[in-house]
Amino acid sequence: MRDAFHEDLDKISDQLVEMTRLSASAMSRATTALLDADLELAEGVISADQEIDGIRSDLDELAVELLARQQPVATDLRIVVTALHMASSLERMGDLAEHVAKVARLRYPQSAVPPEMRATIVAMGQIADRLVLRAGEIIASKDHEAAKNLSAEDDEMDALHRRVFSTLAAEDWNHPTDVAVDITLLSRYYERFADHAVAVASQVVYLVTGQRRPKNSDDREL
Amino acid sequence: MRDAFHEDLDKISDQLVEMTRLSASAMSRATTALLDADLELAEGVISADQEIDGIRSDLDELAVELLARQQPVATDLRIVVTALHMASSLERMGDLAEHVAKVARLRYPQSAVPPEMRATIVAMGQIADRLVLRAGEIIASKDHEAAKNLSAEDDEMDALHRRVFSTLAAEDWNHPTDVAVDITLLSRYYERFADHAVAVASQVVYLVTGQRRPKNSDDREL
Repeated sequence: MRDAFHEDLDKISDQLVEMTRLSASAMSRATTALLDADLELAEGVISADQEIDGIRSDLDELAVELLARQQPVATDLRIVVTALHMASSLERMGDLAEHVAKVARLRYPQSAVPPEMRATIVAMGQIADRLVLRAGEIIASKDHEAAKNLSAEDDEMDALHRRVFSTLAAEDWNHPTDVAVDITLLSRYYERFADHAVAVASQVVYLVTGQRRPKNSDDREL
Repeated sequence: MRDAFHEDLDKISDQLVEMTRLSASAMSRATTALLDADLELAEGVISADQEIDGIRSDLDELAVELLARQQPVATDLRIVVTALHMASSLERMGDLAEHVAKVARLRYPQSAVPPEMRATIVAMGQIADRLVLRAGEIIASKDHEAAKNLSAEDDEMDALHRRVFSTLAAEDWNHPTDVAVDITLLSRYYERFADHAVAVASQVVYLVTGQRRPKNSDDREL
């Protein structure tokens, strides 16, 4: 049988994995709501964000209680502090999915995404989904080698993000400015979502290896 | 004389205040670089971000050491955990200032900000500056009443952010799409910077009163 401390750690780990599932589901549904101009689905994503926030709040409380009661040191202490950072990123990922859903709601009954941008948004949604689900697997398995591989997917997201800006700046882009504003923000939301997923996985690498990944740059000149 | 634990806490508090000063300076210089198309100033902001990142990293280490060595409980424990959250927001504020500077660099020798947008960017820069400096005062003074007053300034920032979108969507907006993309992102950077400043101040309120401020919404439908 595991001791109380490790039971609490398992609970924190389970909550983190649950947050990855919920934020994956939120972003995936938000993407569908956006592409299909599905108001009900968008509203569902927006109201479900409270659940992610609630888990984060519970997790923070549990971590503080655990620190107070068990007074962990060394690696055990780092696990708890790292979990606090991961929970913060995962909550933010839920917020970003909510933002995507709010763009869908704002433009309903139109879709905010013009036809020539649909494939890019689909691809961004797919990468976001893969990244967060893999981050969840990495939290559960502590497989730090797998964490290192997330960078390639994140690079793909960054490439899509850059391509969005090229498309918007191209001469044949002929939509009103508010469409460009929506697409700019949407692209940034997906790209930040991916950054946070990579940051979560990097925390696992740090825990297992003690190595910090170089800070991710999240702008246009990657 | 203060004991070792409270000396460490003072050091953490000093580092947080230093981070507010550095991120205020970074955003203020980034705004000038943006408006004046000053490449050298922009490069200075970009390279100075490492210093903020370094303090954050030192602060994280100090907090973990302090938890391990002093095993604080109750309020003392919450102070340390809260400092970790504040440091994360302050590092992010430095990143956002760096992003503004990178837009300035990207468009040099032009300014990314068209004439009719200059007053708005100036105002956003001024609010950002006030918010972060007041967050620093609140960290130093633990004056939670002052923290509550930051919301009004943040509301002003949100109003400017909404006005940017109206300007971009207006019929008389006649700039190329890449200008709209820059302005959209810049507006979002300032608005997020302000959100983080308010989040930092809210952590002080939480520490002193135990009350959590409702989560800040950071999108267009405030």
